[in-house]
Amino acid sequence: MLTLETAIKIIEKEILALKLPVYPVNLYNPIKYTLSRGGKRIRPALTLIACNLFSDNYKKAVLPALGIELFHNFTLIHDDLMDNSSLRRNDPTIHIKWNPNTAILAGDAMYIIACQLICKVENNILPVIISIFNQTALQVCEGQMMDMDFEKRNNVTVNQYLEMIGLKTSVLLASSLKIGAIIGGADPQSSEKVYNFGYNLGVAFQLQDDLLDSYGEENVFGKKIGNDILTNKKTYLYLKAIRLASNPEKKFLENLYSSETHNPEEKVKSVINIFNLLKIKALTQDIINEHYDKALYQLDEINISKKKKKVLTDFTETLKKREK
Amino acid sequence: MLTLETAIKIIEKEILALKLPVYPVNLYNPIKYTLSRGGKRIRPALTLIACNLFSDNYKKAVLPALGIELFHNFTLIHDDLMDNSSLRRNDPTIHIKWNPNTAILAGDAMYIIACQLICKVENNILPVIISIFNQTALQVCEGQMMDMDFEKRNNVTVNQYLEMIGLKTSVLLASSLKIGAIIGGADPQSSEKVYNFGYNLGVAFQLQDDLLDSYGEENVFGKKIGNDILTNKKTYLYLKAIRLASNPEKKFLENLYSSETHNPEEKVKSVINIFNLLKIKALTQDIINEHYDKALYQLDEINISKKKKKVLTDFTETLKKREK
Repeated sequence: MLTLETAIKIIEKEILALKLPVYPVNLYNPIKYTLSRGGKRIRPALTLIACNLFSDNYKKAVLPALGIELFHNFTLIHDDLMDNSSLRRNDPTIHIKWNPNTAILAGDAMYIIACQLICKVENNILPVIISIFNQTALQVCEGQMMDMDFEKRNNVTVNQYLEMIGLKTSVLLASSLKIGAIIGGADPQSSEKVYNFGYNLGVAFQLQDDLLDSYGEENVFGKKIGNDILTNKKTYLYLKAIRLASNPEKKFLENLYSSETHNPEEKVKSVINIFNLLKIKALTQDIINEHYDKALYQLDEINISKKKKKVLTDFTETLKKREK
Repeated sequence: MLTLETAIKIIEKEILALKLPVYPVNLYNPIKYTLSRGGKRIRPALTLIACNLFSDNYKKAVLPALGIELFHNFTLIHDDLMDNSSLRRNDPTIHIKWNPNTAILAGDAMYIIACQLICKVENNILPVIISIFNQTALQVCEGQMMDMDFEKRNNVTVNQYLEMIGLKTSVLLASSLKIGAIIGGADPQSSEKVYNFGYNLGVAFQLQDDLLDSYGEENVFGKKIGNDILTNKKTYLYLKAIRLASNPEKKFLENLYSSETHNPEEKVKSVINIFNLLKIKALTQDIINEHYDKALYQLDEINISKKKKKVLTDFTETLKKREK
């Protein structure tokens, strides 16, 4: 069985070996730049792993897996432009290194190349693969629009937030696995369970990000604690706190998140203090565990040997324990 | 046989009947707005016509034809943003009516919906249809990048210009026809000829646009003559003139196209004067006719009755004679 580390290495090697057109250079150089800048390559690696659950020939999933990675990177190029982020993986983003128009057009082209790679499957499964991919891509756009909408709204509910992170991040993780499983020959029930495993894993992962940002150990986490609080990000923790707060606490929180005149350290301290009063850490940990449990339950339900599934159960356990 | 007018009416009706998702409204409303704003609908109408050349059941081409129209409109949304155009068909563009981020994201979503519609073909032709579509989409991006690059370059050749307009506009017209033909059951040779017909028609059409901008009858053309000259657009006429000009004429032309201090009417007059000296009108008319002839030759070569092809020969003759 393929290990996650091996799968990642295969993807990294294949990405660097990917033959892209050369002209016009202003269109393809930004794509090459993006792909050469690394990344965790988790999604395409999971495509190979999921294929390998059902077939020894995981190689037939390599090109579609690259398609998934290119799709993911396309979303990063357009998201970075929309969010006006100037750095990605410590390197300048496309709209900074080139210009906004190049980021729009190179992103578009990268998405089209992603489609071309996704289509590199046997004809009998092409209709289902392309349908999953198109639906997922549209959902990711919906999630990104919801995320941008939420920044301007003050009445976002916890469930709307869960829906948003589900669309923006979890569906792609889920589809990466499902597409791999189908290429490997999985029956519809099994590929659906693989999808649900990935979806729940994705939600848990994102919520854990939210939790670590407020409750991580700064020297382990590697970033300053409270960045989400300082940028007024309406995370699960904040929305749950708003839901549970008394009226004075709610007003206090909303005031802290609306004005920018607060002393940063005091602001983080005050917000975490309210989170503590409302037991937000335990409540968030509960919903994270709930999603990890759901993920593992779905995995358990798939009718293949525990030995084969071990790579995914181990991966889940690693994520559960992560502190950064 | 379907007439062009009927095909356009069918497309217009089907576009307005297209069921799109509703939420998030900020993602889907701009798409609905774009689609409700009209347009000539020539490309999807040609998809139906091309299908009808080979099959009585042109209805099976309706959804892929809509996919082509949505793809075309996606390119308009992103192009308008990149070109900073504030009006399209006399209405505000998406980045003006909403904002640039909405134009990026709604454009992306529109492209994905276009892919979904293109895939609404029988499974046996899906691989070839999706492959043509992806390749065409990538070529359109290449053409747009070349167009943006050319604005900043002073050494563009006539052939590079022809390549650029081929990629930016003709391949989509060509593929609209080819996809329709394949849905109608055309054999590979015939569908290739249909493609070549469309490609040459597209190039001729674009060159005619360039010609009319300098040599149209203002009261028939409906727009001020010389707009391309005033905006320093390096059209076929300009590039051909630069190619044929003597050194002093070349310097004079380049000076007119680089500085913005000229009196507009005098500038147009001076440029057209050089065009006249160099016989640019006749030379451009020659290459236009050459492409129309090539288009008609390809059409003639297709092994179906002249009666069936009449709708496309008539369409070509109408385009040839157009004065606006």
